[in-house]
Amino acid sequence: RVGVSLWPQSCDIAPDWLWPLPQSFTSSTERYPLNPKAFYFGYGRQSAAQQDCSVLDAAFKRYFSLIFPDYTSGSVSAGQASLNAETVWGALRGLETFSQLVYQDDFGTYFVNKTEIDDFPRFQFRGILLDTSRHYLPVQAILKTLDAMAYSKFNVFHWHIVDDPSFPYQSRTFPDLSSTGAFHPMTHIYTQSDVRRVISHARLWGIRVLPEFDSPGHTQSWGKGQSDLLTPCYRGSTPSGTFGPVNPVLPSTYQFMARLFKEVSSVFPDSYIHLGGDEVDFSCWKSNPDVRAFMQKMGFGGDFTKLEAFYMEKIVNITSALKKTSIVWQDVFDYHERIPKDTVLHIWKGTPASYKEELSRMTKAGMRVLLAAPWYINHIAYGQDWRNYYTVQPLNFSGTEEQKKLVIGGEVCMWGEYVDATNLTPRLWPRASAAAERLWSDEKQTSSVDEAFPRLQDFRCKLVRRGIRAEPLHVGHCKHEYQGV
Amino acid sequence: RVGVSLWPQSCDIAPDWLWPLPQSFTSSTERYPLNPKAFYFGYGRQSAAQQDCSVLDAAFKRYFSLIFPDYTSGSVSAGQASLNAETVWGALRGLETFSQLVYQDDFGTYFVNKTEIDDFPRFQFRGILLDTSRHYLPVQAILKTLDAMAYSKFNVFHWHIVDDPSFPYQSRTFPDLSSTGAFHPMTHIYTQSDVRRVISHARLWGIRVLPEFDSPGHTQSWGKGQSDLLTPCYRGSTPSGTFGPVNPVLPSTYQFMARLFKEVSSVFPDSYIHLGGDEVDFSCWKSNPDVRAFMQKMGFGGDFTKLEAFYMEKIVNITSALKKTSIVWQDVFDYHERIPKDTVLHIWKGTPASYKEELSRMTKAGMRVLLAAPWYINHIAYGQDWRNYYTVQPLNFSGTEEQKKLVIGGEVCMWGEYVDATNLTPRLWPRASAAAERLWSDEKQTSSVDEAFPRLQDFRCKLVRRGIRAEPLHVGHCKHEYQGV
Repeated sequence: RVGVSLWPQSCDIAPDWLWPLPQSFTSSTERYPLNPKAFYFGYGRQSAAQQDCSVLDAAFKRYFSLIFPDYTSGSVSAGQASLNAETVWGALRGLETFSQLVYQDDFGTYFVNKTEIDDFPRFQFRGILLDTSRHYLPVQAILKTLDAMAYSKFNVFHWHIVDDPSFPYQSRTFPDLSSTGAFHPMTHIYTQSDVRRVISHARLWGIRVLPEFDSPGHTQSWGKGQSDLLTPCYRGSTPSGTFGPVNPVLPSTYQFMARLFKEVSSVFPDSYIHLGGDEVDFSCWKSNPDVRAFMQKMGFGGDFTKLEAFYMEKIVNITSALKKTSIVWQDVFDYHERIPKDTVLHIWKGTPASYKEELSRMTKAGMRVLLAAPWYINHIAYGQDWRNYYTVQPLNFSGTEEQKKLVIGGEVCMWGEYVDATNLTPRLWPRASAAAERLWSDEKQTSSVDEAFPRLQDFRCKLVRRGIRAEPLHVGHCKHEYQGV
Repeated sequence: RVGVSLWPQSCDIAPDWLWPLPQSFTSSTERYPLNPKAFYFGYGRQSAAQQDCSVLDAAFKRYFSLIFPDYTSGSVSAGQASLNAETVWGALRGLETFSQLVYQDDFGTYFVNKTEIDDFPRFQFRGILLDTSRHYLPVQAILKTLDAMAYSKFNVFHWHIVDDPSFPYQSRTFPDLSSTGAFHPMTHIYTQSDVRRVISHARLWGIRVLPEFDSPGHTQSWGKGQSDLLTPCYRGSTPSGTFGPVNPVLPSTYQFMARLFKEVSSVFPDSYIHLGGDEVDFSCWKSNPDVRAFMQKMGFGGDFTKLEAFYMEKIVNITSALKKTSIVWQDVFDYHERIPKDTVLHIWKGTPASYKEELSRMTKAGMRVLLAAPWYINHIAYGQDWRNYYTVQPLNFSGTEEQKKLVIGGEVCMWGEYVDATNLTPRLWPRASAAAERLWSDEKQTSSVDEAFPRLQDFRCKLVRRGIRAEPLHVGHCKHEYQGV
């Protein structure tokens, strides 16, 4: 006796449901049972990578467990699948795709259907920002997020590691920054070994770690451990006791920054570094007589955007000398269009109408850009807001083909005002996966949000099966529910 | 070297921060160390309850672990605290309050300040609704929610156990209801022993379990396992193959309901039972020739609200005969003001302006009411929406003192469209705690939402310390963060 359900069921699994959608694939109903006892991954004879490639050796082990979470003995099968990739990182993505192709019948036997897939990412930069300053995230929570990121083919972890509320990064050069600037000097910090652990875990999943040390604004917590770094604010002719952004007029500021970024450059091996530069409040600078004198000397008049530009140029030069490419929030360009051409601009402001204008203007100036504005996923709303993240069209702005190529990718931002380890995972997944498909897949093949819905529901159940506490999209169930509490 | 923080810190704990606020208390800075090795709870000589009172014996054990989560040896202390309560349930609430009074200094020693508290609840009914039909919630998730409810002094678990999408209750009398109506007949059901476990766990926490079997609408899943129960819808003169609400014209319907509610009455010992009665869609009834003939015979004309009233009256009579008091959603009264006087009306609709009018109208008719409308906590919004739940004034409607007394309490509703075990806890806590204080504490003493904020932040950290994944209210941290992933 089988009931026909009137309700969307999450467990109507189609064997070729993949997320994000590959660029092209053909599958057939010809299915092959997989015997976990006989199954193995191996390197092809022609493969440049061979045994001892640490990334793939680790990935083989990992994906075996992901593919066969509870294997019982299956029937014996012959045959093989082959995966060709130009890079090790491409091979990782292919393993993820393969793992999603394997399914179980009601008796628990694993199957994979005959399938051919040709795939590549639409954008090279597919990032997620986590904010570990407004709330501290335990290292375990970050590692688990990296796992889930790989399942959606994200490849950049943008670590917004410090900000106004706290400075959890334990610096070798300036240990006072965290011992006085962290929420707690022992329990709410990232030690050097924590950072190494995050970077090496991320590497094995094919994820780059992009650190952000945002200045001159968003630095209140820095001031606790580094005297004379922040600008003293004045009330009339006397210091008020409060502090503003980094003090841009003292040579000691740049000496400090050079030493800090030298350390950061060696701790974080990625070729990119994020310098922030957003939301600088000028009122404190305006109140300070030394800053005003400096403005006059430099001929900036009353235009404090010139002072910020002056400051950012110095910081960009410091990181250039360290052979790093800078990423800055859009404010920096908005203030000062003369900025080194290899700097990447990060768009975070505005409505769809206004960020499209920014995309147009910035790429026209020949700058590379990264789009975050439509994916501020910390903003929540009742219902299926993933649809808004899915329907973003990052290249739908007025510009030439050359301009479009300057959009290097996009980023999902999970700012931390209302998020810590208690709610991070269900708030991030599967909503971020909607953006992941937009950044990976062909837009024409993924234009229907309604067609995507059951596939995303299925993918969400796959995440739950893998131990990721991804929240439901709507009424329904998964064959294997989250059992924790 | 101590930094002065510019940011709200969750760990500035005041020793007399309690949630919800007691009706009256005085505390002093005179503090007493507690030695876990020597600490014990005992029954007073005059106490009517003595050893072997299962509820209090269990509570003593439980609260010992809650109060001393990681005790090291402390200094020896003498003295004692006494707790006088009229009922066992009152003693449970007092234990909760006492447990919130104990704090640790930096060396880990436990202290309690000299404090006198006189306390009682503002409303007798302080409920939380969980919906286990739109998503199945594992028993563990329900039990954990009961624990957290007790921490906020909630005392009713309204179990919206079945609805359109699924029928997870495994009935002894009608096993087909769940074997065909549940999402899965084995893994997504509540067996009789599951239900007993929930009820007995709830009892030990002083929480009543109010079951809801909502009809005649919201019953799609019932139809799978019980033929002829739902109304066949017609397209013109032929059945369309779809079904509407329960069929109110067949005697077999009432025979089925009498048997079902007889079982439910014995399985759920509470004196209240929730009969639903909301959102009945009349279009299917209208399409059905048998229903139309019945309407004519009964003289209802074209007024289908009379048919619903007829049906509900029959169901209320069934449960009255079983010695249960009925609760129904407001729709039933809106349609048909002649309803047994001891029925409780549950207000779920409308804006603050409109539910106040309902409160006025219903209490004027002498009916007891329960307010849920302002606490639909499944609706989420960015930011501190707990403030909206906190500022509700349940008695701020036009009516006499007698009318106000008819408001028996309120209920936080967590409907299940977008909620399952992956996100239930952080979505419920501490947002529901805001409503809990409104239902427990004196409104005059708790009129400032800004004053409540740091105390609620502290309470949220207490929940986290107790293993409840309660989400953060704003930037900050807890001394003991959630470490899971």
